[in-house]
Formats: sequence, structure tokens, C-alpha cells
Amino acid sequence: MTSYAPPVSDITFLLGEVFDFDGLMRRLPGHEDVNADLAVSILDEAGKFCVGVLEPLNRSGDEEGCRLENGAVSTPKGFPEAYRAFVEAGWAGLSGDPEYSGQGLPRVVQILVDEMISSVNLSFGLFPGLTRGAVEAISRHANSDLKATYLPKMISGEWTGAMALTEAAAGTDLGLLTTKAEPVGDGSYRIKGTKIFISSGDHDFGGNIIHLILARLPGAPKGVKGISLFLAPKFLIGKDGSLGARNDMSVGSLEHKMGIHAQPTCVMNYDGAIGWLVGEAGRGLNAMFTMMNAERLFVGIQGLGIAEAANQKATGYARERLQGRSSDGTRGPVAIIEHPDVRRMLLTGRSLADASRALAIWTAMQMDIAARHPDEAARREADGFVALLTPVVKAAFTDFGFETAVASQQVLGGHGYIREWGMEQFVRDARITQIYEGTNGVQALDLVSRKLPMEDGALASRFFALIEQDLRTAADLPAAGVITKATAQALGRLETTTRHLLAARAAPAEAGAAAADYLRLFALVAFGWVWVRMAAQAATGQTPLHRRKLATATFFAERVLPQTLWLEAAIISGAASLMDIEAELL
Amino acid sequence: MTSYAPPVSDITFLLGEVFDFDGLMRRLPGHEDVNADLAVSILDEAGKFCVGVLEPLNRSGDEEGCRLENGAVSTPKGFPEAYRAFVEAGWAGLSGDPEYSGQGLPRVVQILVDEMISSVNLSFGLFPGLTRGAVEAISRHANSDLKATYLPKMISGEWTGAMALTEAAAGTDLGLLTTKAEPVGDGSYRIKGTKIFISSGDHDFGGNIIHLILARLPGAPKGVKGISLFLAPKFLIGKDGSLGARNDMSVGSLEHKMGIHAQPTCVMNYDGAIGWLVGEAGRGLNAMFTMMNAERLFVGIQGLGIAEAANQKATGYARERLQGRSSDGTRGPVAIIEHPDVRRMLLTGRSLADASRALAIWTAMQMDIAARHPDEAARREADGFVALLTPVVKAAFTDFGFETAVASQQVLGGHGYIREWGMEQFVRDARITQIYEGTNGVQALDLVSRKLPMEDGALASRFFALIEQDLRTAADLPAAGVITKATAQALGRLETTTRHLLAARAAPAEAGAAAADYLRLFALVAFGWVWVRMAAQAATGQTPLHRRKLATATFFAERVLPQTLWLEAAIISGAASLMDIEAELL
Repeated sequence: MTSYAPPVSDITFLLGEVFDFDGLMRRLPGHEDVNADLAVSILDEAGKFCVGVLEPLNRSGDEEGCRLENGAVSTPKGFPEAYRAFVEAGWAGLSGDPEYSGQGLPRVVQILVDEMISSVNLSFGLFPGLTRGAVEAISRHANSDLKATYLPKMISGEWTGAMALTEAAAGTDLGLLTTKAEPVGDGSYRIKGTKIFISSGDHDFGGNIIHLILARLPGAPKGVKGISLFLAPKFLIGKDGSLGARNDMSVGSLEHKMGIHAQPTCVMNYDGAIGWLVGEAGRGLNAMFTMMNAERLFVGIQGLGIAEAANQKATGYARERLQGRSSDGTRGPVAIIEHPDVRRMLLTGRSLADASRALAIWTAMQMDIAARHPDEAARREADGFVALLTPVVKAAFTDFGFETAVASQQVLGGHGYIREWGMEQFVRDARITQIYEGTNGVQALDLVSRKLPMEDGALASRFFALIEQDLRTAADLPAAGVITKATAQALGRLETTTRHLLAARAAPAEAGAAAADYLRLFALVAFGWVWVRMAAQAATGQTPLHRRKLATATFFAERVLPQTLWLEAAIISGAASLMDIEAELL
Repeated sequence: MTSYAPPVSDITFLLGEVFDFDGLMRRLPGHEDVNADLAVSILDEAGKFCVGVLEPLNRSGDEEGCRLENGAVSTPKGFPEAYRAFVEAGWAGLSGDPEYSGQGLPRVVQILVDEMISSVNLSFGLFPGLTRGAVEAISRHANSDLKATYLPKMISGEWTGAMALTEAAAGTDLGLLTTKAEPVGDGSYRIKGTKIFISSGDHDFGGNIIHLILARLPGAPKGVKGISLFLAPKFLIGKDGSLGARNDMSVGSLEHKMGIHAQPTCVMNYDGAIGWLVGEAGRGLNAMFTMMNAERLFVGIQGLGIAEAANQKATGYARERLQGRSSDGTRGPVAIIEHPDVRRMLLTGRSLADASRALAIWTAMQMDIAARHPDEAARREADGFVALLTPVVKAAFTDFGFETAVASQQVLGGHGYIREWGMEQFVRDARITQIYEGTNGVQALDLVSRKLPMEDGALASRFFALIEQDLRTAADLPAAGVITKATAQALGRLETTTRHLLAARAAPAEAGAAAADYLRLFALVAFGWVWVRMAAQAATGQTPLHRRKLATATFFAERVLPQTLWLEAAIISGAASLMDIEAELL
């Protein structure tokens, strides 16, 4: 089985040819010295670390899983050492704030490293991924004491973070949570309650584990307005910054899961844990939401990482596996990569993974603009695009990631079903990305109910206008003609359904009934758009990579984009066929 | 968690109202005494056995798995006892030949029992399912001595069967297999070779295990024409029918799989095992193919069984889980079954499972007609429909079964990802049904390359004519108007693509490029057809079941059938976008 090959040449094409990464960096104060060459050299190193250290632990970590003994979690063999090597090499602080020990690199570089880590070891990637999420919430909402105490060691990766939101009866609906926080009187609180599904809730990497916990203050109102955010470390910190006594929290059990077995997903009992308020009382959900764009982009990237890795392995297998005769019957056995249906599966995954990466880079560029661009209007516009694209990236990348994992597994036939080849692990691991960090149904509802109505639809219109502009630019390139025309048609369907949804805003169930199909339609159009941009660039060159991009764009146009026909029809049919039936009859 | 409810009222509706099961049985010699009442009373009993005995072993069997110790396989706790109870209650011989201890019930009853078993315990169901496949091959091809020796105890279930086809380098392409059979001179052969992925290759249920093995005789030509079929029992049989010495075969290892952990999938070493030829030398593949219609229908039914069970559990959960507010914002928390997107997932699975069952019954009726109808023309026509529908049932039911398992798991959110709720097991178990017994890609190729060109397309035309006839009948029923109109449009797309494929027969890659999408399109149209039949019948009644069927038919028409738009466009785009790219660039 071929090992994973970091997609550095694809990234070079995207940063150097498709998106003007260097030009953007020059315009962003603090990133002036960053360019594609630097990014690629960093990604080369990251790729080596992923292939050399993390990939070899992926299957053994899945087989061994985590253990809870005497209240302490053990991760699989090799994970603590790999994590320490990861921190020592500086990978944890890549995009962290330089004020607190970070290297201050742009989001674009971060997500490309995240993709590689997700390709080789999804379970491992959650440790730094969640830490970054916690860092984001602390950076934006905590007071300066908390920041000074916790951020440097979290950004360096010496300490990790955990997000404690979900309870048994409060998942999607966090307004139902019951964990309590009682003020002690010295500025600290005692937190009591049980949380479930807590990734990285405990581990054996050493250092400290910083829990961000949603809880209610005494007398807080019901629902989401009564929720506050608290920080509680596993070990209390002495005045000198040293680790002190254990806080009153414990791992109740480890969840037994379908996949990500090397990730300790904990039931956490907070038995009067000492914590501090992060942000304002009653604004806990708000504090969580400010970090969600980054976290949801990260989860979308996980979907991309799995798609890339699974497609690579299936392609490698299809080149080597000899089975059956050529379509014209003249040769056999042939490598199965010659069979049209195998190509269909491989090209579907390839066209989705390439487009995901391109759209991810564009979205991360918008995040970098929103964070640093000197012009406020540019920042605001970019921020709007990030808000619009976030649910799309999270849900569509993970749906396509799962679908690609399944199709890639199928390429291996029976060998895909046995554990030895690792394909079934991709499927099991990918499945969680569609569920956590807000299920993909919740993402779809976020898109249609919150993002689409923003500025009365003008935000979405601005995005569509970007696409139209690139369609016009590409219109003169015959080599990109198929994808350009197909994307224009698909965009028309997206605009039709967008008008339909904006017009139906008064009908309560209409948005929810359309949500999932609309998000998929939106994503396919956005993918068409980045394929137009890639094809327009590829049409100017003749390298194997350029020819591959053009061919994949054409495949995407002819075989994948037609899904937009189905989605448009399903959305326009309206909510009645879902809602008219009584619940008892379902 | 609600336990599985055998869908007896749905079956009663189908046998009694939609299909004239009683009328058909009266016309089939040997089945004159069978009617829907009898079938339903048998299914009631089967349902009790499934819920009482098999369902409780499903999750424990998955957790425990099988073991290989000192060369012997142990199945999970409770499986040997459950299997013996299954045999003692007479379930193994339900549709078996009465000449050899079977009860001679029609295929329709058999597949409905199979569905229930597949819903509660897919791993268990493979033991009797594979035995029936072996029985079928022996019945049709073995000499009378072999039949007399093996069939009675295999049909009673006392002995089980195993099918040994696949080798490490010969999966889809059985022509590459290398297992050898050398004649001893006394009519027996010595079989040498290693087979992989052998379901039920060994177990601890007692009795004997009858292996049907594909192997090559000395001097046999290369490829499929050199393959013969042999029967080799685990224990040789004495003249008095008693079990004698162990044959020279052993379990090399157990495959470690994504799912069906309670099913011992073996690597089998045949080290000179004594066996006997079944059928003619060099006609082994032919002997296997004659039983494949039944086996592939059985695997399709497994997909249906998982879809039914997963949808039921998700629906039960959605009724009880309180989360979020009603669409109009006035009430909360509400049961999530009120949320449109949850309904979309539940109704998609429900519409697919109901249609699968209806189409399965229709196909099984054709098998019963083909086996027993006094009129040869009727038998021949039915046989043609079975040939046409077999790849569709196998591939589409299992694809939809997997998709329904995934969507049902999604309804449970994070709870769907942990093992405790059993939803993730449905996904892992369902996944194999898309792979074994010929991958779904192979089924699709069978449909477009073998079945569609039969009689120059006239076989398919006869099937389309059946659909058109029922569309005309339903045209006068306003309540069935939505599904009737949508199915008529979808049928038009199927006819267009059928003409396209028949016209493109000379282009070698065209069929393969279209295959998977065409099979899905074909299945959706066939589902539309049975929904028209169900809706037409439901329109005449006012029971909750009738209203449920009408509502589900409308949902299927508006939200699922539009997929045919996408599939038509993808097929018509042709093979170029798949085949023009060099393999090296993929």
C-alpha cells in the first residue's frame, strides 16, 4: 500500500497560480514576509512529519484505542511521544499570536497543515485542533490575567484545551444544559455537572488540560441567555506558573465510538471544579460562537483530509490491482484503473477533494483579510464571506469527505472491508466530522436561516457576483468551456432557489425543509466556481498537473454538477411533503 | 430504545391489497394452499423469533466477535444456541424442497423472513442464507448421490454451507483463480489452494459444513472456462450418513472486518481436501451463476432489512428526543421529529425501505412464477424479469440500505456515533452488502452490458410497458396524482438513457461509464412504479396505514425522484470525461 503523499504540488498550483497568495500577503500588515515559497517549504516539512511520525500511528491507534484506568486516560502506544515531538517541532503554535509564543503565520498555512494531519491521523489532529479553538475563545473573551496565565503554554502546545459543551439532554439545543457554576467570592467559581462527548477531556501527554465549560450561574434565566463560559484547568496553577493541586474534575468514562479510537472522548464529571468566568455572564454561547468559524473550518478541513488520503490510497490500489479485461475486450487482466466505473469513483473523489482545498484556501484568505487588512471595508466584506461560507465548508466538505471515503473503500472491493488496508477506518473516522461541531443539519439551518437572510440576501448576492465575474473572465477560454458553462447553469439554479427561500421566509418550515439540499447545491456551485478558476489557469499551461486539472474540471462539470438539477427540483417542491404528515404516522 | 417491530401490517397491505398474492398462489401448482393469511401467520412467528432470540444477540455478537483458537472457530456467546433453536423451529427449511425435508413455501415468504432476520442480526442471517445458496447449486447441478447425501441435512439446517470462490488475486475476476483439484481415480478429487473472504467457513454450531469450491482440473484452460465446482465437506460422510474423519481443510485465519463481526469470515486452506465434482467439468462458473439470482436477491434483502431497522430506531428516537424549538418558534423543546430536516432523513429512508419491500415481493413472485407456473410462456417471461431485476435489487437495495443507515445514524447526532445505541453497527454491517456477492459496480455492469441488450432491448421494454400500464390505471386517481406524474417523467428519463446506451453499444467504455448511474436511475423508476401501485391502493382507503402510504408516495415523488434528473444528465454526458484522461494523471 502506497503511503500518503502530501499534495504539495497541488498546493503550489493553488497558492502560486490560482490565488494570488503573495499579493494578498503583501497587503496584510504582519504577513508581509510570508509568500508561497515560504508556505510551501513549511508544508514540505509538515508533510514529512505527517508521513514519518503521525501516519504510522494511525492504524495502530485505531486498533489499540484509549484506556481509562484508575481515573487516568492512556492514549495508544506512541501518541504521547508523537505529541511531544509535534510540540517540540513548533507545529502547535504555527498560527498562534506571537505575543503569546505563537509564530503568527496566516490561516491559509494553518489549514493546509491541518489538512495533512487530518489525512494521516484524524484522532491526533483533534488534540491541537481543539486547543486552538480554546485559545481562540480565551484570546477574544478572557481577561488579561487568564490570557497571561494560559495562552503562552496553550499556544506552544505544552498544555492542551478541551471544550465542554454537550450534556446528555443538551446537544444541538445547548439552552437545555444544567451544569452549574457557583461563585466562591474570590472571583472564582465552583462548577458542578456532567458533560458528555468531550474530546481530549483527558490524556497522558503531560502538561495541563484547560477545560472551557458552559454552565449556569445561580438565578440565570432559562435557555441560552442563562449560559456562561468558564475556564477550569485540570491542575490549578501556582503563582509562579507551576502546576499545583488537581482540580475537582474526573473522567466518568470513555465513549465507545465508531471511529477516532485514538481520541479519548470523555464523559467529564465536574465535581465542584474551580473555574473562572470567560467573557460576560450570560454571554457564554456568544463566546463560543466567536470561535466557531475557525473550528468549523477546521472540521471541514478534516473532511478534505480524509477525502484526499482515501482517494490517494484507492488510486494507488487501482493502479496495481489487476482484474478483468479492458472495455474493448482485447486485454486482460488489466489494472482496474482502466475500468470506467472505477474511474468514476476515483474522479468523483478527486474532483471534490481538489475543489474543497481550493475553496478552503479562498475562505482562509478571507479570514486572514478579516483579521489584518488595513481597510475596514475589506475586512467587513471578507468577514461576511467567512460567515456565509463557514456552514458550507463544514457540512459539504465533511459530507463529500465521507462519500469519498466510502467510494474509495468500494474501489478495493472486499479488501476495502477488512481492517488491514485502512480504508474502512477512513469511513469510520470521517463519519464523526458530519456530526460534531454542530451536525451538518444544523449547519444547513445556519446557512438558510441566518446567513442567507443577512442584509436581506445581499451577502449571498455579493458572493454570487464574485462567481459571475470569474465566469465572464473564463468565457474566452475554450479549454475551460465545459466547466464554465456548467457552472453558469448551476449558478442559475442556486439563484432561483435562493430567491425561492428568501420569498418563503414567512413560512416557518420552508427553510428547514430546503436546508440540507440547499447547502449541497450551494457547495456544488462554489466548487464549480473554484474549478472554473483552476481550469482557467490550467488552460494556460501544458504540464501534467495542468492537464490533470483541466480533465478533472470537465469530469466535475459533466458528472457531478448535474446533481444541482435534482437539488433545485427538490428544494422548489417545498415543505408540504415533509410537514403535512402527522408525526404519529411517520 | 424501542426494539424492532416486524413490519407485518405493511406486509399484509402489500400481499393482500397491492399484489394479488392469493390469486397468484392459486395458479401455482404446489402452492395452492398458500395464501396471505398463512404467510402473515408465519411472518408473525418469524418476527417473534427475531425479536426474542436474534435481536438480543446483535450488539453482543458485534462486540464479542468470533475467535479462532487451536484451529477451531468460536462464534459469539449465544449464537450456537440461537442457531440450534432456529433449526429446531424449522426456519432453515422454509422454502426448501419437500423432497429433501423442506417445507416448500414460496420465495415470497422466504424473502420476507429473510428481511426480518437481516433487520435484527445480519451476521446470523448469513449462516442460513449461504446454506440456501449452496443447496441451490447442489440441487441444480450435483448428481443424485450427492443430492441424497447432502441436501436433506442442509435443507433442515443441521449442516451449513459455505461458498469458496474468492482468492487473494481473484475477486471480481474469478478467471484468475489458481486453486487446483486433482482426480484421485475413484471419482473423488483432492483440492489444494487458499480461499479468502469465506463466510461461515467454520463455526461451532455442530453438524457439518459443506464447502462449494471453485477450482481448476489438471490441464484446464486459462480463464473462466477452466473453472469447475467441487463439493467438500468439513467431515467426510460414512456410508450410514454419519460424520467421519475430518477432511483436509483448515481455517488459516479470521478476517478482521469493519462489521458483521459475529460472522466468521475465514481464510480457508484446502490442503488436499477430498471433494466431488458438481456439474460438468469446466462449467463451474455456470453452476455458480444459476444460484446467483437467489443469492443476489437475498443480499438485496439484507439492505432492505438494515434500512427498515435503522429507520425504525431513528424514528423512535426522534419521537422521544426533545431538542430545539418548533419551526414557528412558539414551542420548545419539541420532539425532533417535528424538525423538517429530521423528517427529510426519516421519510427518505422510509420511502426507500417501503419501495424496496414492494419491489422485492414483486421480484420474488416472478421467481415463484418462473419456478412453478403451468404456462411455459409465463415462466419464461417471469424468468426474464428476474434476470433484469436481479442486479437492480442487489445493488440499489444495498446502496439505499447503507444510505438509510447513515441518515438514520445522523438523526441521533452524537448518540449515533457511539456504539451503545447500535446505529453505527447498522452502518458498518450494511457496508458489506454493497461489496460482496459481486460489488455493486459489477451489478451495474451486469445490468447495462448483459441484461439491457437482451433481446435487443425488448426485455427492458417489456418491463417499462408494465410500468406504463400501471401509470395509465392510476391516472384517474387524484390522490395518487403526484407520484403518478413524477414516475411518468422519470420513466421518460429512463427510456431516453436506455436508448442512448443501446445506441452506444459499439463504444466499449460507454456502458461501463454509465453503469452505476443507470442502475440507480432504473431502481428509482422501479420504486416510483411500486409507489404508484401502493398509492393507487392507498387512495381507496382511509386507515392510518393508507394515509401514511399516500404521504410517503408524495414525499418520494417530490424529494427523491428528482435525482433522476441528475442521473439522466450524467449518463447522457457520455464516457469521454472518464476515459480521455491518461491513467498516470489520475
